[in-house]
Amino acid sequence: MRVLITGGAGFLGSVLARRILADGSLPVGGAAPAPVDEVVLVDLAEPAKDLAADPRVRVLTGELAERMPDAPDADLVFHLAGVVSGAAEADFDLGMRGNLDGTRAVLERCRAQAVPPVLVYSSSLAVFGQDPALAPLGEVRDDTLPRPQTSYGTQKFIGELLVADYARKGFVRGRSVRLMTVSVRPGRPNAAASGFLSGIVREPLAGLRAVCPVPPDTEVALSSPSRTIEGLLRAAEVSDAEWGSRSALTLPALTTTPRAMAESLDRVTGTSASDLIDWEEDPAITAMFATWPARFRTDRAAALGLEPESSYDDVIRAYLADLG
Amino acid sequence: MRVLITGGAGFLGSVLARRILADGSLPVGGAAPAPVDEVVLVDLAEPAKDLAADPRVRVLTGELAERMPDAPDADLVFHLAGVVSGAAEADFDLGMRGNLDGTRAVLERCRAQAVPPVLVYSSSLAVFGQDPALAPLGEVRDDTLPRPQTSYGTQKFIGELLVADYARKGFVRGRSVRLMTVSVRPGRPNAAASGFLSGIVREPLAGLRAVCPVPPDTEVALSSPSRTIEGLLRAAEVSDAEWGSRSALTLPALTTTPRAMAESLDRVTGTSASDLIDWEEDPAITAMFATWPARFRTDRAAALGLEPESSYDDVIRAYLADLG
Repeated sequence: MRVLITGGAGFLGSVLARRILADGSLPVGGAAPAPVDEVVLVDLAEPAKDLAADPRVRVLTGELAERMPDAPDADLVFHLAGVVSGAAEADFDLGMRGNLDGTRAVLERCRAQAVPPVLVYSSSLAVFGQDPALAPLGEVRDDTLPRPQTSYGTQKFIGELLVADYARKGFVRGRSVRLMTVSVRPGRPNAAASGFLSGIVREPLAGLRAVCPVPPDTEVALSSPSRTIEGLLRAAEVSDAEWGSRSALTLPALTTTPRAMAESLDRVTGTSASDLIDWEEDPAITAMFATWPARFRTDRAAALGLEPESSYDDVIRAYLADLG
Repeated sequence: MRVLITGGAGFLGSVLARRILADGSLPVGGAAPAPVDEVVLVDLAEPAKDLAADPRVRVLTGELAERMPDAPDADLVFHLAGVVSGAAEADFDLGMRGNLDGTRAVLERCRAQAVPPVLVYSSSLAVFGQDPALAPLGEVRDDTLPRPQTSYGTQKFIGELLVADYARKGFVRGRSVRLMTVSVRPGRPNAAASGFLSGIVREPLAGLRAVCPVPPDTEVALSSPSRTIEGLLRAAEVSDAEWGSRSALTLPALTTTPRAMAESLDRVTGTSASDLIDWEEDPAITAMFATWPARFRTDRAAALGLEPESSYDDVIRAYLADLG
């Protein structure tokens, strides 16, 4: 079996690739687990050295629209690549090319296969937005109408609709999952407006200062890396019948606030590490967060056995354990 | 003032152009009525002779993606052009090019203006669909989540999302309106799956036989040509504040059935003209109609003064009056 991962050099893509390579086999689309012969990583950037060195890994570097036509047939595709929220808002054309044209290139490549692959498409909670002309959004459910208030959210939602229609036409076995903000994400900051939700924990743990650009009591919806990977793999695993509606499925969220996260940090470490957080509001990021919902009721995910974390303390402990 | 109409050679586009030329002036975007100096008609086909002969009319013939870059700046754009439902379902690539790439070309042309125009985008009730994995759709409201079950509906909904994001970015003053099936549409049948909803009245009135391809008691949602034009002009007229949410507005619908329409036909004409209807079910068209809702609650339209017809008899009488 061949697995293709777009965004395969990014954080989630790398974790997913390592997990699949370590397991060595994978159940896909309701079938029994099958051995993984090759993992193809498509990304603008080169993958990490350990991945590039694995003889089962093939690397395709470049833009999706340019590289996907060269990609080999796959049994399972994870489409994780994208232009992140802050970058898509700052450069409209970049976002349209990366998120809309890029997704079309992935879908067209899937359609060209004799046997359509299972495609897991990573959408985002950013498809939802607080419409300034309407009453507050409140709790988001599986059938809440997304009214995206960012270009990133718009492009992600359009991707969901394309995946659903390609699936309806039989061009692909598509499953769209809406990811929460992943925290704690290791490594360096990226251009995602939500990046600080990792930074305010990661940097103080490394003895570095970090900025929280939104008010401390802003409600946010998070998922740990491991729960996020679990959601992606579960979407790949189930049969079409278990998956059900071709509409997107929202993954579970832990609702918290930066203030509560800072308290977790101090509690778990037994230090006052959160003193390293600078609470400096950034109007642009605060405005973007004000449009995103933070409370979700994810019945469809629960029916697939996917539940949110119950405590951010556990998330920090898991991050520390992974650091080793 | 210059008005540009894509699909300007089609039925609705032609009626709209004639109405605007006859009125000679138009209120746009909350401003006082201003004189119309030029009406630009963009279409694959040539417009009707009376329109082409009007000295205030300019014609651009060809695909949107090719012709829109040549189009002059406009104060008001009606984007009516599109690949109809049956054709977009039969030829996926044609639908994507016409409905998705075509809409992007219109939006990019608007964005290139120094002063963004008011853009009225004609979407469709076909954005809604009965998801086979879910409970019946029931009454559709302004905040019902569209789950399109046709490529046409998918592409139209994507257009709505692009219009909303271009509007949010200030590239255009966008207003998406979801049109009902227009009946009675004069002239010849087209490739729309819903075309019979005009044919079963129009053809018998002309002494011709017509096929009804769905069961007689199938509920359908209709709007007369005049109410549809009224909705488009109202969307153009109001201020941004009156328009409110950038999400699409669903125009009002008269809910009826082919059987009730046939009864109207006989009642209004005092004949048994409906004997000319052949009730021959077509599985593909019946399946497509089974996914479309027929009952709407259109509060937002009502707040703008837009109400549905109360009687299909009146619709037939208006059609006969227009025939002269």
